[in-house]
Amino acid sequence: MTVEIICVGTELLLGNIVNTNAAWLSEQCALLGLEMYYQTVIGDNPLRLKSQLLTSKKRSDIVILSGGLGPTEDDLTKEIACEVMGRQLVLDEQAKKDIEIYFRKLNRPLTDNNWKQAYVPEGCRVLYNKNGTAPGIIMSDEESTFVLLPGPPGELKPMFEDFVIPVLEHMSSKVIRSKMIKISGVGESRVETEILDLIDGQTNPTIATYAKTGEVHIRVTASADTKEAAYELMEPVICELRRRFGKNIYTEQESVTLEDAITEYCLKKGVTISTAESCSGGLLAGRLVNAAGVSAVLKEGFVTYSNEAKMRTIGVKQETLNAYGAVSEQTACEMAEGCAKAAGTDYGVSTTGIAGPDGGTPEKPVGLVYIGIYAKGSVKAYRYQFSGNRARVREQTVAMALRRLRNALLAGEES
Amino acid sequence: MTVEIICVGTELLLGNIVNTNAAWLSEQCALLGLEMYYQTVIGDNPLRLKSQLLTSKKRSDIVILSGGLGPTEDDLTKEIACEVMGRQLVLDEQAKKDIEIYFRKLNRPLTDNNWKQAYVPEGCRVLYNKNGTAPGIIMSDEESTFVLLPGPPGELKPMFEDFVIPVLEHMSSKVIRSKMIKISGVGESRVETEILDLIDGQTNPTIATYAKTGEVHIRVTASADTKEAAYELMEPVICELRRRFGKNIYTEQESVTLEDAITEYCLKKGVTISTAESCSGGLLAGRLVNAAGVSAVLKEGFVTYSNEAKMRTIGVKQETLNAYGAVSEQTACEMAEGCAKAAGTDYGVSTTGIAGPDGGTPEKPVGLVYIGIYAKGSVKAYRYQFSGNRARVREQTVAMALRRLRNALLAGEES
Repeated sequence: MTVEIICVGTELLLGNIVNTNAAWLSEQCALLGLEMYYQTVIGDNPLRLKSQLLTSKKRSDIVILSGGLGPTEDDLTKEIACEVMGRQLVLDEQAKKDIEIYFRKLNRPLTDNNWKQAYVPEGCRVLYNKNGTAPGIIMSDEESTFVLLPGPPGELKPMFEDFVIPVLEHMSSKVIRSKMIKISGVGESRVETEILDLIDGQTNPTIATYAKTGEVHIRVTASADTKEAAYELMEPVICELRRRFGKNIYTEQESVTLEDAITEYCLKKGVTISTAESCSGGLLAGRLVNAAGVSAVLKEGFVTYSNEAKMRTIGVKQETLNAYGAVSEQTACEMAEGCAKAAGTDYGVSTTGIAGPDGGTPEKPVGLVYIGIYAKGSVKAYRYQFSGNRARVREQTVAMALRRLRNALLAGEES
Repeated sequence: MTVEIICVGTELLLGNIVNTNAAWLSEQCALLGLEMYYQTVIGDNPLRLKSQLLTSKKRSDIVILSGGLGPTEDDLTKEIACEVMGRQLVLDEQAKKDIEIYFRKLNRPLTDNNWKQAYVPEGCRVLYNKNGTAPGIIMSDEESTFVLLPGPPGELKPMFEDFVIPVLEHMSSKVIRSKMIKISGVGESRVETEILDLIDGQTNPTIATYAKTGEVHIRVTASADTKEAAYELMEPVICELRRRFGKNIYTEQESVTLEDAITEYCLKKGVTISTAESCSGGLLAGRLVNAAGVSAVLKEGFVTYSNEAKMRTIGVKQETLNAYGAVSEQTACEMAEGCAKAAGTDYGVSTTGIAGPDGGTPEKPVGLVYIGIYAKGSVKAYRYQFSGNRARVREQTVAMALRRLRNALLAGEES
């Protein structure tokens, strides 16, 4: 089955907001095994929207629309979709009640135009909105199915997950399931080279790689008559990936991040960590704190961007800074060891580098970063040359520090 | 003049990446005064791309394409655009030389398919790529102009800024200029209410507001025959905005962020700051370190996510934690004062809150955050109730902490 997305909203055409809905919906559709050939963004304009809907209806089995379901006169997705499908709008009592309850809860006055949102196309399926006032809509004719969703991601996502996925799964004769394998410690091109043979012969399951900063994710997707059969089809590929990447796989769960995996590992082993950041300036600790439960693991973080702070708080020696500079293997080591000592932790991670745009020299160019790892008594620093602007250098620094930390934790287990 | 965007790439249709190019290009086009009615995403498929180009060519004066200029067989944007415009591909010697130099610099072997990128449509304008191997292309016929750009944002953006903007400006009979006014310390709805009269009557210049987390940006855009005339048209509106928002305007420069403005202010006044973060866990320091030159200002940051660290490093009292809890006005104050004392700075900023998803109670629900500000001897904490998930709560915490810090710096000036 084919699907396409139409995002409605002048704010997208003006570049005021990034179209994250399109990416999220696309990924969901891919997971459902739907083929997508088009995404379109169109403004709040009745003629252009109508013309687009007529085109899309002919070429796609399912047309997912987001946005334009609000209470103002500009919001006309529902009205135009009705026109194209030849339906009337009728009052939906449940939607009306929901709107009343919603406004009462927020203690906001209801204006006349809010009732507009309680009208739905006759004979459609209404998707009641738990997070806003615009109900979603599913309606079909012999040619195509329209799915209308509210624009705010906080309303669109739960509505899609709760109501649309079951309907789309039901429409499809096949069941699609997928698993995500997340890898840290192996570069993108090496991952791709190592699974070339698996990708080459793929039909069902399919294998797709996604490069993230410092990580590679591999999605394995299978289509079958039952979900059990789909998982069975995947199993040999998953086993083969486990064999090839071993401990570099940090999770097989979609929702688990590298910082989650590190935190969970530390909790299990009862070890603690601390951070000392120069060029990353707090972003490394900031990522670790994404993980729930990290308070028992991350004892303390130090942002020692100035040399003064490096010396006073985590005991970097003046002589080290004088002899080698703040961006050096030696300073990275003293920072990592110093923060672990100051915070009394088993592990310490440090970052020091030249994030740019200024401050680079021929010997120490912009993008040069040292990552120090103190692990239960021994300390080591790793040198990297990153490229990109200040933000990119800092992002890569954080990703690489997490990777190095995880490697140290795993190595600690072996010894 | 009308413009539309076609982004080519199956990875967009699969939701592997978010289409940030579309948002960026749209904003640039709006700045140039171009009218955009459509954005389309299409896969690496020759038939569908050709059909889309034929449609787009008829309805838009300018069609901007991104992606599909790579060296592989899948990359066919250039080939299909040539077919639609009835052109041949010819070797461009300069592009060929650029590719050789690029590969030599990276010390990578050149493969045969790389030469594909040196071929360009006859009679087109070639946009040489300083950041990659795919040259961009501008070509026109009587109906429309095609602008072909490489997909990676690091190549697309500088190419658009350096080569495409001057061409598009030249094509337009009008000169468009805009100014950005960035406001901190006034909520979005209040800003909108306060400028309703200015927005209502607007034609030239136009006024648009953009809500960012914790900030509001106002863009004033004028169209005239010369750039001097455009700035002259804007001036009365800019003056009126200055009159209405006064010191809440932290910059009138597009590229200056709130952390840049704070850093610059501190450098000018010779004052120093430090941070103590619990729920934001390093992200506040991380944002400050975005600003170049911050090392003379941000003496030190502490990520004291654990109670232990709060006590040991920045001197929060055990009794305070026992009596009021870590998320309290009292703890926020002690953290702010404690970090300033520990780091020896004039100002100290602290964050402590319940970012969720767990840890909330009826008295202290998820989203409750205290921000402490120590300013030259006195300390005060501010209570906020944010909504959204863990990441959103933390993002709002950082934005509000910067806003409070700036207010304290300005108040310090007055006293």
